[in-house]
Amino acid sequence: MNKILKLNETDLDVTVQGGLGWEELRDYLSDYHLLYSPDPGPSATIAGGLANSCSGTNAARYGTAKENVLSITVVLADGTIIKTKKRARKSAAGYNLTGLFVGSEGTLGIITEATLKLWTKPKFENIAVISFPSIADAASTVTSIVQNGIYANALELLDETMMRFINESGETTSKYDVNPTLMLKLGGDSKETVKLLTNSVKKICAQNNSKTFRFAETEDEKEELWTARKVALWSTINWGKANIDPEVNVWTTDVAVPISNFVKTISETQDDIKQSGFISSIVGHAGDGNFHALILYKHEDYQKCRDLVQRMVDRALVHEGTCTGEHGVGYGKRGYLEEEVGEDTIALMRKIKLALDPERILNPDKIFKIDPNDHEP
Amino acid sequence: MNKILKLNETDLDVTVQGGLGWEELRDYLSDYHLLYSPDPGPSATIAGGLANSCSGTNAARYGTAKENVLSITVVLADGTIIKTKKRARKSAAGYNLTGLFVGSEGTLGIITEATLKLWTKPKFENIAVISFPSIADAASTVTSIVQNGIYANALELLDETMMRFINESGETTSKYDVNPTLMLKLGGDSKETVKLLTNSVKKICAQNNSKTFRFAETEDEKEELWTARKVALWSTINWGKANIDPEVNVWTTDVAVPISNFVKTISETQDDIKQSGFISSIVGHAGDGNFHALILYKHEDYQKCRDLVQRMVDRALVHEGTCTGEHGVGYGKRGYLEEEVGEDTIALMRKIKLALDPERILNPDKIFKIDPNDHEP
Repeated sequence: MNKILKLNETDLDVTVQGGLGWEELRDYLSDYHLLYSPDPGPSATIAGGLANSCSGTNAARYGTAKENVLSITVVLADGTIIKTKKRARKSAAGYNLTGLFVGSEGTLGIITEATLKLWTKPKFENIAVISFPSIADAASTVTSIVQNGIYANALELLDETMMRFINESGETTSKYDVNPTLMLKLGGDSKETVKLLTNSVKKICAQNNSKTFRFAETEDEKEELWTARKVALWSTINWGKANIDPEVNVWTTDVAVPISNFVKTISETQDDIKQSGFISSIVGHAGDGNFHALILYKHEDYQKCRDLVQRMVDRALVHEGTCTGEHGVGYGKRGYLEEEVGEDTIALMRKIKLALDPERILNPDKIFKIDPNDHEP
Repeated sequence: MNKILKLNETDLDVTVQGGLGWEELRDYLSDYHLLYSPDPGPSATIAGGLANSCSGTNAARYGTAKENVLSITVVLADGTIIKTKKRARKSAAGYNLTGLFVGSEGTLGIITEATLKLWTKPKFENIAVISFPSIADAASTVTSIVQNGIYANALELLDETMMRFINESGETTSKYDVNPTLMLKLGGDSKETVKLLTNSVKKICAQNNSKTFRFAETEDEKEELWTARKVALWSTINWGKANIDPEVNVWTTDVAVPISNFVKTISETQDDIKQSGFISSIVGHAGDGNFHALILYKHEDYQKCRDLVQRMVDRALVHEGTCTGEHGVGYGKRGYLEEEVGEDTIALMRKIKLALDPERILNPDKIFKIDPNDHEP
């Protein structure tokens, strides 16, 4: 269940079995200079990523998992195997079943095969790392870039705590300015295009008080700069173990809001974390208005941490956002989901669930409780 | 039910009532230099376009209706009103109900309100019109452009018959080369970017035997060149009335295939049309592997024309395509849909339909027959 079945280079699609690791697919496609854009956590499988509608650092440019799949094969609760579509890029033929299963967290069927959309990797791409005096300046830069119709291939925001953890992690050879930082991927089909794009971005950064603008000159440097982004989670955990408690836990959570509310949501969250006495790094897929808090907490502070997360979600909902931009609901965010979309919308999801899985055998009680009168499991 | 409720310029979204005409929205947004990318037929409403998952000339670059909506308000069969999401660009919160209603052709609920994604219009954009000796050369050019990771904002293909009809329609001031033709929109955030893009495209066109490469120099010329594309349907009908029969009918139909099968599918269809003795223009959203045939037929040739369309659909399905890229299924393509996805997939759609509309009051028997044993209506 982890095979690559067929690559169609001309059509920019690939058919794979559900159990394939996305990193294996990434490495395989790299030889063809092609990209499957979702980049979830390292151990994720393709079907797992689809079931959770994953995204990652490339989503602002290329969309999330649900925009990058053409067709899936699904085993339904009664054992029937269906295929949702053929291989055409565009289709208006019947209900969008692909879109329904993607993000349903295994509650409606099991994805066994998928035909995925691929992208030609930009011929030229560079990484820019830009620091700012405040998180508000960094976030405002993102808004301006989006507003100006400039398409960066990734638009990542890391707060000053995150930058400190990266510096102290020893995972990167060079040290970074310990300030709120944007990491951008800027690509194009010629060096000149990338240069023009970079100049436009540089100008916007300067207008938003950027302090340093660092640019990769070599392939190694590119790799090095992006590594800093990729080690976010582990450097937070390691810092916590070394500096707080060897048994420290990390509560990873994410929300997303419309970009106009990004600055205040992220700033208020940062303030709340400090006032609550927690240490947390914040890293955001800023182009999507989506950010993660990686909150370090000791076992005895579990409830206090939970309250902090509740306030973070409430804040996102007040700002017209969502309780989860990419992590999904599972058991943990069921209550938040109901706050977000309301009882009637949940009731509709429940109708679909029961129509497709009347015996309630598939990941029962994930996303919402099948019987709303059930007590907490 | 046709009001614009709220424009969020910074967030690039707008909330509107379902009955709003998409052209009214387009004109309103134009003052803000913003774009709602789906461009269906002139009289379409926003809710109608969503219910049919419409697309049009911009879809290859910006996606179809389903990729350009953040949230919808829907009246369900039992009168409940639900909202699918809040306004965040990205969300992994619960089932993708938005995606389920979009393209369900009014069979699951009635869309009354929608929050739509907008795009910043490219600061600079130009139109290129390029003719080729054969439809195969034109279609191969599209494949190369896509393969090279070059993003045109529109990639339209018009066959030689279409170009003849446009010339004879009198709707455009200048005349076009009567050969298979590509019409491209090339945009960017600076004149230099557009120039670089144009040079890359020109090179690919030349490698594929392009005959003429015409470029708009002024705003008026841009408008003029794109008008030629927009009058495709009417110029076909008018030509038929003037040259075949004042009572002539036009059968408009569309299919889509993976781009590697685009050349053969479109060429074989063109041959079949000629051999069947029909006159038809062909116009394609080539970047999506999607094309339309506008077949002129007299009343007495109805069955013959229907057979021709059946062969066109069969050919698309053999080439791993879909029976409809953007027109939808309705009653007319129900049989084709079953050929395309199979009985079990239809049975699943039926389960969802009956769970949401047990009384069968919403557009009954569209897309598939609710009771498979019913006779044709």
